[in-house]
Amino acid sequence: MEIDVRKAADFLKANDDYLILMHGSPDGDTLGCGYALCGALQRMGKRAKAVCPDEIPHKFDYLSKAAEVQEFEPKTVVCVDVADPKLLGKLENIGKTAQLCIDHHESNVEYAERTLVRPDYAAACELVYEVINALGVPFDKELANCIYTGTATDTGCFKFSNTTAQTHIIAAEMIKYGAEFAQINYVNFDLKTQGRIKLEQEVLNNIRYYDEGRVALIAVPLSLLERLPDVDSEDVGALSNMPRQIAGVEVGICIKEKKSGVYKVSMRTSELVNAADVCALYGGGGHARAAGCSFNGATMEQVEVKIVKSACEAVRQALNK
Amino acid sequence: MEIDVRKAADFLKANDDYLILMHGSPDGDTLGCGYALCGALQRMGKRAKAVCPDEIPHKFDYLSKAAEVQEFEPKTVVCVDVADPKLLGKLENIGKTAQLCIDHHESNVEYAERTLVRPDYAAACELVYEVINALGVPFDKELANCIYTGTATDTGCFKFSNTTAQTHIIAAEMIKYGAEFAQINYVNFDLKTQGRIKLEQEVLNNIRYYDEGRVALIAVPLSLLERLPDVDSEDVGALSNMPRQIAGVEVGICIKEKKSGVYKVSMRTSELVNAADVCALYGGGGHARAAGCSFNGATMEQVEVKIVKSACEAVRQALNK
Repeated sequence: MEIDVRKAADFLKANDDYLILMHGSPDGDTLGCGYALCGALQRMGKRAKAVCPDEIPHKFDYLSKAAEVQEFEPKTVVCVDVADPKLLGKLENIGKTAQLCIDHHESNVEYAERTLVRPDYAAACELVYEVINALGVPFDKELANCIYTGTATDTGCFKFSNTTAQTHIIAAEMIKYGAEFAQINYVNFDLKTQGRIKLEQEVLNNIRYYDEGRVALIAVPLSLLERLPDVDSEDVGALSNMPRQIAGVEVGICIKEKKSGVYKVSMRTSELVNAADVCALYGGGGHARAAGCSFNGATMEQVEVKIVKSACEAVRQALNK
Repeated sequence: MEIDVRKAADFLKANDDYLILMHGSPDGDTLGCGYALCGALQRMGKRAKAVCPDEIPHKFDYLSKAAEVQEFEPKTVVCVDVADPKLLGKLENIGKTAQLCIDHHESNVEYAERTLVRPDYAAACELVYEVINALGVPFDKELANCIYTGTATDTGCFKFSNTTAQTHIIAAEMIKYGAEFAQINYVNFDLKTQGRIKLEQEVLNNIRYYDEGRVALIAVPLSLLERLPDVDSEDVGALSNMPRQIAGVEVGICIKEKKSGVYKVSMRTSELVNAADVCALYGGGGHARAAGCSFNGATMEQVEVKIVKSACEAVRQALNK
């Protein structure tokens, strides 16, 4: 059942002993939602804990300050920023019993008894902000840090097209409540590990341009990751956007070797080419500007030849239109 | 004479035939101010032109759409985001005759007849926004693009500590008026030339760590820039922040060879070290977190040995405190 902010707040007021679930491979939005909602419920005198199936990166340690650790037997399950219980990993079965889900994904499968979803919101934290307001809990620095983190991290620091006027207005509110935004942005957007620097360096050394620089490709073989043990999946994930950032590049491609003979292709495009169409040729999919596909039982070179050929053809078709 | 927004608007209403001067080596803020104010005055039926002493980078072409090109003999000079007429290069002498200056630099030397200055504003565009409101000119997409550009580019896309709640509120307003923020942010923050990529690659290949990674140094010799002809000064300038972005680095140093035997050192620090103090040892200065100094008649290696020694000493002193 889809509900509105008012009804979600009424439900949260009427119940107690909350288990708040945040999705696996946690990001700033799910964690910001979880700890902000947990802290707000505690400030109302409720018992609440926020739990994530995976380890939380240390850079997000500050978020947990919004709530205290409480021990109790949960009675009410709430999922935040979780479009599908599958995203809860080992907590999937608990997630399926959720009485409330607060989310901003269009792909939400409406698994919870009550779903509060706003696909036009850049961050689920924008929705949690509205819920906390409806609960009547006043904001403080710790809650503000959580909400700010979700809005900033889900928009590339207000850079991407999903940002709305409302996103900025909420950020402004959070700054007024003391959100430590400069430090939050530093750890989320500027800080890089030595491993990440080394990874970028190696990848840049092997960037390949095709079709007069309209197609650019980087490759991340397993052997590279084995040589750089302190590189994590977030470091590798961040590479996907890199080739498309180069002036003149219409199609940016990143090939990652996941395990021996298994490759994941990430494609980012500018104006001309529909990335989802190209990736669909290989059984993949996604969005017009960001898509992906997988290859099994091939070599890196074979994958590169295939995907580059398709990308160049798509560019040529678009130019000939 | 210092004036307020109301008085600045009254002055602009009472006069005509405006020459609006933007500072040399123009950035998004001075250009956003200049074209927005020019366009607003034209929409009031006034004659106005915005002029910059230096060539305007092509990525800012969209800003000039806020105003039309008009030919007339100027009578009233207004400077925007210009703290000192010296920053006007070949237009310095005209700048000295300014009847109005709108600026946000604490260092403004109050050279104009009337100065409207707000050092607590992140961008001069925030002040021009208030002036345009006081003039009663309604915003449209083109004016909004200008004001948005100034606020975004002067704050690292709302990332840096100079950002305020007001900055976000103005950004929200500009988005409501149709500012094409995603494209603006793409060209200002994500897009890199192939030369820039090559430069980053070469510099990363030679990054040096000292004092267990607490000091990191990159060097940009003239020979490197000669090998990369399509690299511009903006590309080189962007490197200064790179070493400090690495996790664990307290002092990030970038040495640039300006001409043979002439070196410019840029220093960025985290919490421990005062960059201005270290640079002062070599006759330089700046701020606590960002400072610089110069060396003449030395080799790159000699400069590196000196500045690294001082940086490591400063780290050790801070750790022993």
